[in-house]
Amino acid sequence: MTPLTISKDEYSRRRQTFMTHIQEQKLQGAVLFNPTSIFYLVGFHFIPTERPMALVLDAEGKTRLFVPRLEVEHAEQASYVDTVVSYFEYPGEKHPMQHLVDMLQQAGLQTAFGVDADGYASGWGYRGPRLSELIPAATFTFVGRYIEEMRMAKTAEEIALIRESCRWGNLAHVLLQKYSVAGAKEIEMIATLGPLYKPAGSATAFAGFRGQIGANSALPHAVTINATLQPGDTLVTGAAADIYGYHSELERTMFVGEPSAEQRRFFELMLCAQDLAIATIKPGIPCSAVETEMQRYYRDHNLAPYLRHHTGHNIGLMGHELPFLDLGDNTIIEPGMLFTVEPGLYVEGLGGFRHSDTVVVTETGTESLTYYPRDIDSLICG
Amino acid sequence: MTPLTISKDEYSRRRQTFMTHIQEQKLQGAVLFNPTSIFYLVGFHFIPTERPMALVLDAEGKTRLFVPRLEVEHAEQASYVDTVVSYFEYPGEKHPMQHLVDMLQQAGLQTAFGVDADGYASGWGYRGPRLSELIPAATFTFVGRYIEEMRMAKTAEEIALIRESCRWGNLAHVLLQKYSVAGAKEIEMIATLGPLYKPAGSATAFAGFRGQIGANSALPHAVTINATLQPGDTLVTGAAADIYGYHSELERTMFVGEPSAEQRRFFELMLCAQDLAIATIKPGIPCSAVETEMQRYYRDHNLAPYLRHHTGHNIGLMGHELPFLDLGDNTIIEPGMLFTVEPGLYVEGLGGFRHSDTVVVTETGTESLTYYPRDIDSLICG
Repeated sequence: MTPLTISKDEYSRRRQTFMTHIQEQKLQGAVLFNPTSIFYLVGFHFIPTERPMALVLDAEGKTRLFVPRLEVEHAEQASYVDTVVSYFEYPGEKHPMQHLVDMLQQAGLQTAFGVDADGYASGWGYRGPRLSELIPAATFTFVGRYIEEMRMAKTAEEIALIRESCRWGNLAHVLLQKYSVAGAKEIEMIATLGPLYKPAGSATAFAGFRGQIGANSALPHAVTINATLQPGDTLVTGAAADIYGYHSELERTMFVGEPSAEQRRFFELMLCAQDLAIATIKPGIPCSAVETEMQRYYRDHNLAPYLRHHTGHNIGLMGHELPFLDLGDNTIIEPGMLFTVEPGLYVEGLGGFRHSDTVVVTETGTESLTYYPRDIDSLICG
Repeated sequence: MTPLTISKDEYSRRRQTFMTHIQEQKLQGAVLFNPTSIFYLVGFHFIPTERPMALVLDAEGKTRLFVPRLEVEHAEQASYVDTVVSYFEYPGEKHPMQHLVDMLQQAGLQTAFGVDADGYASGWGYRGPRLSELIPAATFTFVGRYIEEMRMAKTAEEIALIRESCRWGNLAHVLLQKYSVAGAKEIEMIATLGPLYKPAGSATAFAGFRGQIGANSALPHAVTINATLQPGDTLVTGAAADIYGYHSELERTMFVGEPSAEQRRFFELMLCAQDLAIATIKPGIPCSAVETEMQRYYRDHNLAPYLRHHTGHNIGLMGHELPFLDLGDNTIIEPGMLFTVEPGLYVEGLGGFRHSDTVVVTETGTESLTYYPRDIDSLICG
C-alpha cells in the first residue's frame, strides 16, 4: 500500500518549482504567512493562532521556519526545513514581527522579495505592523499565486490521498445513512470512525447534515440546528475525512421514508444535471464551458428559480480551491485537477437537492473517486 | 432559564456603540469583511468561502448585508439587517467586488469610510482586487479595532452563554475521562453529546487530546495522531462546546494509571502555578502584571526550561481573543473580561502539564466558570 503521506522528494520538487519563480523574478527570497502554503512546501501542519508564524526561503531556497517557542519541537519533528527560529511569545516585550524582520535581514531579504501578504493576519486577537511599515524601503512582489497555481493539478501522490479520503468519507456515510431514521437527532449522528483512521491535523472523519434537514435543506449553506428527523424530510448530507491534510466531498440527497412525487421530480432533475456535468468535464476546455452547458440545461427545464450556486470547485488541501466551474472562470481544465460536481436545486418549503461527487480529470475525461450510490432507491432511509 | 442567545436589544446596542465611533470620525459608514464582526453586529453566522460577503453600515447605521445568492434566504432568516443584497456567484462574469462597489456608492460610502480590511480575503481560492484599487480616490480608516475592543469585556448575556459552554464542556470531559483507559485509541474517544445540546454554528461539543498523549503531550499544540493510550501516559485534554458562537476552555492533565514521582512533581508545580495565576488576576492591574508574577514563580522554582507560552488569553466568539496574560500586554484588566488560566510545563520525554480553566473577572477578583476537579487524585484514569 502507498504510504498515506507526501514524500520528501515531492516536497523538495515543490520547493524547487516555487524557487524557479522567485529566481526568474530576481527576488532575494520569499516570506510566506499562509498556513496552507507552509504545509504545502515543508509539511508543517500547525494550529494558527495570534502568534505569527512564517516560512522564509532565501535566494538559494534555504528554508527557515519562524515560530513561537511553543511550536519549536513540533516544527523540528514535523517539517522539512533547514532551520527553526523562534521568539518566546505574542505580543511579548518585543513584537514578533520585529523578530521576523531581524531574521529577514540575516537571510538576505532586504530590498526586493516575495510575500504572500503584507504581514501576518489572524482573527485570534493578533495586532501588529505590516511588513511595508517595518521595511518601508523594500519592494514586495506577491508570490502566493504561484503556489495556488502549483496546487491546481494534483500529482499521483496527492490523488492517492484524496482517493483514501473518499474511502473514509464513504464509510462514514454508510453509518450516517444507517442511523438516519425518523426521530433521530442531527447531532447524535455525526459519525466518528474507528482506530484504523489516521488523519493529519486535528480533524476526524465525519458525516452529517450541517442543518440541511427537511425544509431547512433548501439553504445550501445551512448551519447545524440539531433538528429531529421527520418522516418525509429531504436530507442533504456531507461526509469527508482529512487524509494527511487532503480533502474530498461526498454529499447525497436522501429521504426519510418514501419521497413524494415532487421530491422524486427534483431529485431526478438534479441527478440528470450531475450526469451532464460529469460528462462535460474534460481536459482542454475552459471551466466556464462546463457551466455554460449547465445553464443551458437549467433553461431548457425551467429550473432558474431553484439555482443558488455554480456547479463545483477544485479541492485538495482546502475544501474549495481554484479553479471553479463558473461562467467567470476561464481556466483551462487539465489532467490531475479535481472537481466536486454538485449542481443543486433548492425548493422553498420542500428542500434541497444536491449530490456532490469528487472526480479527477484524466487524459480524456474524468474518473469518479466517489463511489457511494447515487440513485434514489439507494437513498431512502428508515 | 435565560434563552441561549444574544437578544435583539443587545445587537442593537452593539451597532449603536460601533456607530458612535464611525460618527466621531466623521466617516460615511463602514464596510466589514470579518465573519466574527458580522456575526457580532447582526447575528449572521455563515460559512466563509471564496464568495465575498460584507456588512455595510451607512452614516445613519442602516445595515446592508452583501452575500452570494446561495446565502440570501439564510441571511434574511438569521440576521438583524435592514437589507440583504446579493450577486449570483464567485468569480462570476462581473467580479463580486465590482458589485460591492456599486452598493457602496448607493449607500453613500464614496470618499471617506471605515473598513476592517482592504478587501475580502479567503484561503479557499478567492482572488480579487483590493478596495483601494477599485476606489482609489477614497480614504480608508481601519475600524476593526473598535469591535475587538467592544468584545474584550463581556456582557451578562455573553457570560451566560460561556457559562453554558463550560457546562457542556464539563459533561464532555466526564465522558472522555470515563473512556480514557489503557488500550483506547485517541479518535474513538472524541465525545459527542446528546440531543439536548443546541449549538450555533457547525461545531458540536467535544472532548479529546489533540495528540497530547504520552511523551507527545510535551508539544503544547500537538495535532491528532490517533495514538493508543498506554499505562503511565501523561495526557493533556481539551473539552469545549460552542454555545451560540461562544466558547470556553477546559483542559486537564490526566494520567493513565498511577503517576510516577516525577509526574506528580510537575503536576503539583503546575497546579500551584495555576492557583497563583487565578489569585493574581483582578481588575485594575495590567495583564502584564499577572505574567510578571508568574515569571517570578518560575524563576524561584527553576522552571524556565519547561516554559513554552504565556499564562492565558481572553475568550469569547473566538478561541483566543485580546487581551493576553503576557509580559507585553499592558491592557488594564476589567470586570467582564474572561481569561483562560493555563500555565504549562513541558518536559521532554515525560509529557506536558497544563490545566486550563475559564474565569471571569469580577469587581474584586475572578469567578471560575470551570468546575471540573483539578486535583491529581481526581485525574488518574484506568
